[in-house]
Amino acid sequence: MIPTIRWENNRVCIIDQRKLPQKKEWLVCRSLQDVIAAIREMAIRGAPAIGVAAAMGLALGSQTIKTENYGTFRSKFLKMGQQIKSARPTAVNLRWAVERMIRVVEGMFDRSVEEIKKTIRKESQVILEGDIQINLMIGHNGLGLIPDGATILTHCNAGALATGGYGTALGVIRAAHEAGKDIRVIVDETRPLLQGMRLTAFELMEENIPFTVIVDSAAGYFMRKKMIDLVITGADRIASNGDTANKIGSYQLAVIAKENKIPFYVAAPLSTFDLDLENGALIPIEEREPDEVVSFAGHLLGPEGVDALNPAFDITPAGYISGIITEKGVLKSPYENSIRNILGVKDDRGPKMR
Amino acid sequence: MIPTIRWENNRVCIIDQRKLPQKKEWLVCRSLQDVIAAIREMAIRGAPAIGVAAAMGLALGSQTIKTENYGTFRSKFLKMGQQIKSARPTAVNLRWAVERMIRVVEGMFDRSVEEIKKTIRKESQVILEGDIQINLMIGHNGLGLIPDGATILTHCNAGALATGGYGTALGVIRAAHEAGKDIRVIVDETRPLLQGMRLTAFELMEENIPFTVIVDSAAGYFMRKKMIDLVITGADRIASNGDTANKIGSYQLAVIAKENKIPFYVAAPLSTFDLDLENGALIPIEEREPDEVVSFAGHLLGPEGVDALNPAFDITPAGYISGIITEKGVLKSPYENSIRNILGVKDDRGPKMR
Repeated sequence: MIPTIRWENNRVCIIDQRKLPQKKEWLVCRSLQDVIAAIREMAIRGAPAIGVAAAMGLALGSQTIKTENYGTFRSKFLKMGQQIKSARPTAVNLRWAVERMIRVVEGMFDRSVEEIKKTIRKESQVILEGDIQINLMIGHNGLGLIPDGATILTHCNAGALATGGYGTALGVIRAAHEAGKDIRVIVDETRPLLQGMRLTAFELMEENIPFTVIVDSAAGYFMRKKMIDLVITGADRIASNGDTANKIGSYQLAVIAKENKIPFYVAAPLSTFDLDLENGALIPIEEREPDEVVSFAGHLLGPEGVDALNPAFDITPAGYISGIITEKGVLKSPYENSIRNILGVKDDRGPKMR
Repeated sequence: MIPTIRWENNRVCIIDQRKLPQKKEWLVCRSLQDVIAAIREMAIRGAPAIGVAAAMGLALGSQTIKTENYGTFRSKFLKMGQQIKSARPTAVNLRWAVERMIRVVEGMFDRSVEEIKKTIRKESQVILEGDIQINLMIGHNGLGLIPDGATILTHCNAGALATGGYGTALGVIRAAHEAGKDIRVIVDETRPLLQGMRLTAFELMEENIPFTVIVDSAAGYFMRKKMIDLVITGADRIASNGDTANKIGSYQLAVIAKENKIPFYVAAPLSTFDLDLENGALIPIEEREPDEVVSFAGHLLGPEGVDALNPAFDITPAGYISGIITEKGVLKSPYENSIRNILGVKDDRGPKMR
């Protein structure tokens, strides 16, 4: 399995996902700005993976802060955190990783800057390795939801490449396959950037898990023909009521799955939950360049001057979600309660959570 | 407006829709086989357009039948009809046009073969011109369904290029624009062959009707944001209960439209109805080559060896359809009755229709 991201000789090396599977090229990031660009331009993508990238980017950035003074260091570090947080708006794991790194810095106010830098570097590695462990647990926890003989639809890529390794939605699929279940996968190609066709197909092929690709428009056809037993996707942000932001197209998959009485599961680490947001309407949706839609490999697909709207994510209301598979277990509706319980949040929260 | 198909110097000239909008190339068909290939390879596509092409292909083919004997002519002509009918299985207009041409031949049993050939040739032109007239009437009949200020979603291309001219779904949109209504269109790109991005965008741009393209996966997002007021698509075959075959993706659009209380209309000529079929489950669905999905312009999109399923159409059950706009008016549910009434079919039909 190709590692998504690794630290090497004070560089952050990222497998360039824009070029997979045709080319396996490593993008070597030498600065925080390089990592921000890699996230923005989607050389690395997937909510957990960009969390790891943010942590490593900050570790890289912190090394360039030339001061012995804690206050100066902290203030420059916070500024870097702000910068990388704004690289992409929807996945909350980015913010989660930045905040976790900031907590490390803030807890070390009585230590030398050199020591802090070392700890930050280590923490980014802990986040990477922790993410892989979390994915293994998500895979394990999802196992019971996959019947032997099942055909599973997945959208976009929530695999090893979208995470530190192993994957969330694809982690559950991988775990079922490893457990000896006879499964097959239908992969939505996932326009415009074809993460399903390129990345999920690549990972499934590596694992020898039988699969076939379809255009995103064909999912309903196969559901109605009862050729799909369940759907699993990843998530970029989950509001406190369970409303889930994920790759554009997830919402309509959930609607047609419900119409066809097919379970629709979300697989995501707890770092994907955003309890600051009461519901999905508050999750910011990234609008990307029209060019991603209207061009391919330098070819203009439509007539000269054609314009496109290109929202990268959509919101699936909690009511369409049959369960959320996390490292601590499978959450069920009502999500307001199950999410708070699993995160250990007390029930006497302020009016913000009402 | 570019004509979809025309007869010129005993040749059938077809604008090659595989190359639009980047190239405007005419495909010159010199034989029935050329026309069959053009239909099969989708140089011409769209249910009404392939009906016209079939008629012209038969006119072309009939000229090569070297006999003065009516019986010999008829039997060779019927064979040609069989051949062209099998070019594509889903759109019933192909069969409709062939059967109409056969009726002409069968009605002329007492005439010379030369005379029959001339009449056949004329009949194919009547079908072409009649289709344009029918589309104008569909446009007129659909006008009342388009509120001023509406944003209309359409899928695939049901425009001038899909018909003899003017269009069915796009005919209604065109009529609303010509009537001075302030409308805009959201165009599903329509993978895998991008008829929305290439053909519908091209037609709307020619007409100066404001539009934007989206990936097929984004339709639900815009419906849920209340940015779409209604959906109109064409149809390839409509069963006697109103179940409608149309381009893959239409079914899921209809489901998410219903979920969001957005009307979903089908616009189609009466030649699209197939009263031989009780419901949509009986409509044959064409499965096309995986290559259309996994390759683009010679680039393999996925990993080496990637496979795809590529159904070209799906069935939208009648229950999701708010109305069917025809040249004789807008049909409403229950479609069993409204379809029989408009086609002038008596109610005392045999058990076949039960």
